[in-house]
Amino acid sequence: MSGRHLLSVDDLGREGILEVLDLAESFLEVTRREIPKVPALRGKTVVSLFYEESTRTRLSFETAAKRLSADTMSFTVGSSSVAKGESLRDTVQTIEAMGIDAVVVRHASAGAPHRVASWIHASVVNAGDGCHEHPTQALLDLHTLRHHRGPDLHGLRVAVVGDVRHSRVARSGVKALAALGAEVVLVGPPTLMPESLEGWPVTVSHELDTVLPDADVLYLLRIQRERQSEALLPSLREYTARYGLDAARAARLRPDALVMHPGPMNRGVEIAAEVADGPASVVTEQVTNGVAVRMAVLYSLLGSGGTVA
Amino acid sequence: MSGRHLLSVDDLGREGILEVLDLAESFLEVTRREIPKVPALRGKTVVSLFYEESTRTRLSFETAAKRLSADTMSFTVGSSSVAKGESLRDTVQTIEAMGIDAVVVRHASAGAPHRVASWIHASVVNAGDGCHEHPTQALLDLHTLRHHRGPDLHGLRVAVVGDVRHSRVARSGVKALAALGAEVVLVGPPTLMPESLEGWPVTVSHELDTVLPDADVLYLLRIQRERQSEALLPSLREYTARYGLDAARAARLRPDALVMHPGPMNRGVEIAAEVADGPASVVTEQVTNGVAVRMAVLYSLLGSGGTVA
Amino acid sequence: MSGRHLLSVDDLGREGILEVLDLAESFLEVTRREIPKVPALRGKTVVSLFYEESTRTRLSFETAAKRLSADTMSFTVGSSSVAKGESLRDTVQTIEAMGIDAVVVRHASAGAPHRVASWIHASVVNAGDGCHEHPTQALLDLHTLRHHRGPDLHGLRVAVVGDVRHSRVARSGVKALAALGAEVVLVGPPTLMPESLEGWPVTVSHELDTVLPDADVLYLLRIQRERQSEALLPSLREYTARYGLDAARAARLRPDALVMHPGPMNRGVEIAAEVADGPASVVTEQVTNGVAVRMAVLYSLLGSGGTVA
Repeated sequence: MSGRHLLSVDDLGREGILEVLDLAESFLEVTRREIPKVPALRGKTVVSLFYEESTRTRLSFETAAKRLSADTMSFTVGSSSVAKGESLRDTVQTIEAMGIDAVVVRHASAGAPHRVASWIHASVVNAGDGCHEHPTQALLDLHTLRHHRGPDLHGLRVAVVGDVRHSRVARSGVKALAALGAEVVLVGPPTLMPESLEGWPVTVSHELDTVLPDADVLYLLRIQRERQSEALLPSLREYTARYGLDAARAARLRPDALVMHPGPMNRGVEIAAEVADGPASVVTEQVTNGVAVRMAVLYSLLGSGGTVA
Repeated sequence: MSGRHLLSVDDLGREGILEVLDLAESFLEVTRREIPKVPALRGKTVVSLFYEESTRTRLSFETAAKRLSADTMSFTVGSSSVAKGESLRDTVQTIEAMGIDAVVVRHASAGAPHRVASWIHASVVNAGDGCHEHPTQALLDLHTLRHHRGPDLHGLRVAVVGDVRHSRVARSGVKALAALGAEVVLVGPPTLMPESLEGWPVTVSHELDTVLPDADVLYLLRIQRERQSEALLPSLREYTARYGLDAARAARLRPDALVMHPGPMNRGVEIAAEVADGPASVVTEQVTNGVAVRMAVLYSLLGSGGTVA
Repeated sequence: MSGRHLLSVDDLGREGILEVLDLAESFLEVTRREIPKVPALRGKTVVSLFYEESTRTRLSFETAAKRLSADTMSFTVGSSSVAKGESLRDTVQTIEAMGIDAVVVRHASAGAPHRVASWIHASVVNAGDGCHEHPTQALLDLHTLRHHRGPDLHGLRVAVVGDVRHSRVARSGVKALAALGAEVVLVGPPTLMPESLEGWPVTVSHELDTVLPDADVLYLLRIQRERQSEALLPSLREYTARYGLDAARAARLRPDALVMHPGPMNRGVEIAAEVADGPASVVTEQVTNGVAVRMAVLYSLLGSGGTVA
């Protein structure tokens, strides 16, 4: 990783992605030790600045930081001086002035982490900004795929199913998959597809059932119930009927196909419980790899060049 | 402790209880040192998963974990993805996938910690489930009693006063006291007694004043104000008149009687302020012992067999 | 520092202030190291007990405690048993019984930290009580001034501008500035001046524009929007017109004048954005010094006499 920040998958490029994933592999080994910690970032402070609550993402980053022996602090919107109307800029400059090394930012507005990066000297990691990007999710997904399919993802057929239009997971994921040579097909109703696909290295299908038999990976996105009130979805029931991965559809998958989901899952909506818990699902592996990948990202940004372990 | 979890006092039995209490005694000594920490659980991670907020219980467990050099993480309902409708099972499996060693669970539903234990490989400690059990509270209460009355509790007369019907503290406490030979009498209005007492090794009284002179221990339960709206209590005033421990009643206790309360106290309702702060009260000792007992429980479940200190 | 607590600037006196500031200077050096931590308070536990949320003050104290290697715990009102109606006294006695060494208290009632100090043996630091005091803010402000103006503040002309009436920052600041020989003028509309100034070593002005050219320091207080509904302010627009520090007014300041603000700032109300970010502003230095000063305070109260670093 050349830069000081991880704001987008674009910051990494193919080489940068591979470097992080190699490093993540060694940190995955660390997390399996009797004492799963290394002193790599001792004395560093990592702050999570979450303007949208996401306990799972926050805990994953904080666990990663602690396993590297960094100190962690949490700054969540509900309990922050945001309520007092302080600007994002003043908040991050205040946090930086306390003496911190990295800020992990989650924000509802696309581009917020980029603005934060322009204001401070500490490293910034984008932990999800609006409908824009979520680069560490893409990295952990790649890491999980490579564990099952080997380092070369060329020609791997990945179907990303659901509300692609509003999904930062999909945006970062497509870039990262394409960088490693996978072929992505986006699947979902037209109302949940991006308005323009110019520049997206993907194909599109509105029929899950035709895509199903050839997919190596089915990547299911979380359906937000509020899409119904926005008239983008007729009903959850209808969505599930056409795009939900139930046991019948799962039976038509290739024997070695993988089922992935960024979580939290809506069981019974985009994925049936028995599929979520079934043998093709690697959902909990994704979570485990998330900690190792975030260790690699934090170490790449903050490590002083010493040995990792 | 033989098992991987502490879900109920039943998991321990008399021998298990005594083992934990002996261990707690040595940890109590640790907490009095200039640097009250031991490296016993270094590299282990303990997560508190509280679906009902209880800062005092959560802090007690987290203090215990930190004094054992474990890392701690907090996952409370208000800030969790529970709001997004994620199932308890997905939440705990996600937490476990991040690489943790124990989950301390507080939940409004009886049996929730048992379900959690069936889903994950990490150790589970029940920190209170509905009206069911709160085993570490029972252990810290026993520890406090033994400090004052010696190791043998045979024949000790303990009056448990108040809303026994809804009390997990009472349920765990009665089992633990009986296991060590104490005699328990439940005291309170009929509406606040359990519907069936089959299998409870207790007697029942509806008159505090008749029980008072013979009790070695008066264990007062917290009155929830919402019991009034449920028509289980005529009024707090009337409850206090009949079952509150005021100075006049305290004066009728045996000179060496102990007054206990699990906290937080409703001063002026189940206990008068002057009694809460009086010489018979061991309420703050209960809190202190709570940390030592929880250190013992966490160490019993997670310790690798090395020396404690 | 002679006492066990820091409740008011009065606890320190001139000598005590100078001692803390000297110590803060050496801790500021610590915070600039590659690993900005010292083991000075290893094994000590510092609890922040915030009945009013203030993430910036809480994080500053917790960062200070962590850089001294103390353990930290947070007890904020939203998540505390305060909601269950527990008294302040029972809450602090419970926290103390878990075995802690210092409590950092923020409370809406003037005098609350003093009451806490009367109930427990642990050290108490006042992190802001009602409209009364906020002593560590005053100390960090002095530290910032001395960095720019040298150790001797005699004759320094400091204008404190805004809602002095409701400001604990002003109350502590005036005492501390006077103790070191600075001359303070309070500036603001009559409705926002204290009802009585008896005993305050200050002068008063209702015209910022006449004070401006001679001030060495302009200390702007945060305007609470709720003062409008209390009829203490005609409108924010009018306040800004008369007392806001905009670019035109800033241009009339002495070339070496400093602009200070305790944060969080209302940009466009008491201070214009370009002034907040301009060369005279030392707002982020105040934040940085806050961590060093709080390290000095915690070390003075809890340090065992060993060497600091």
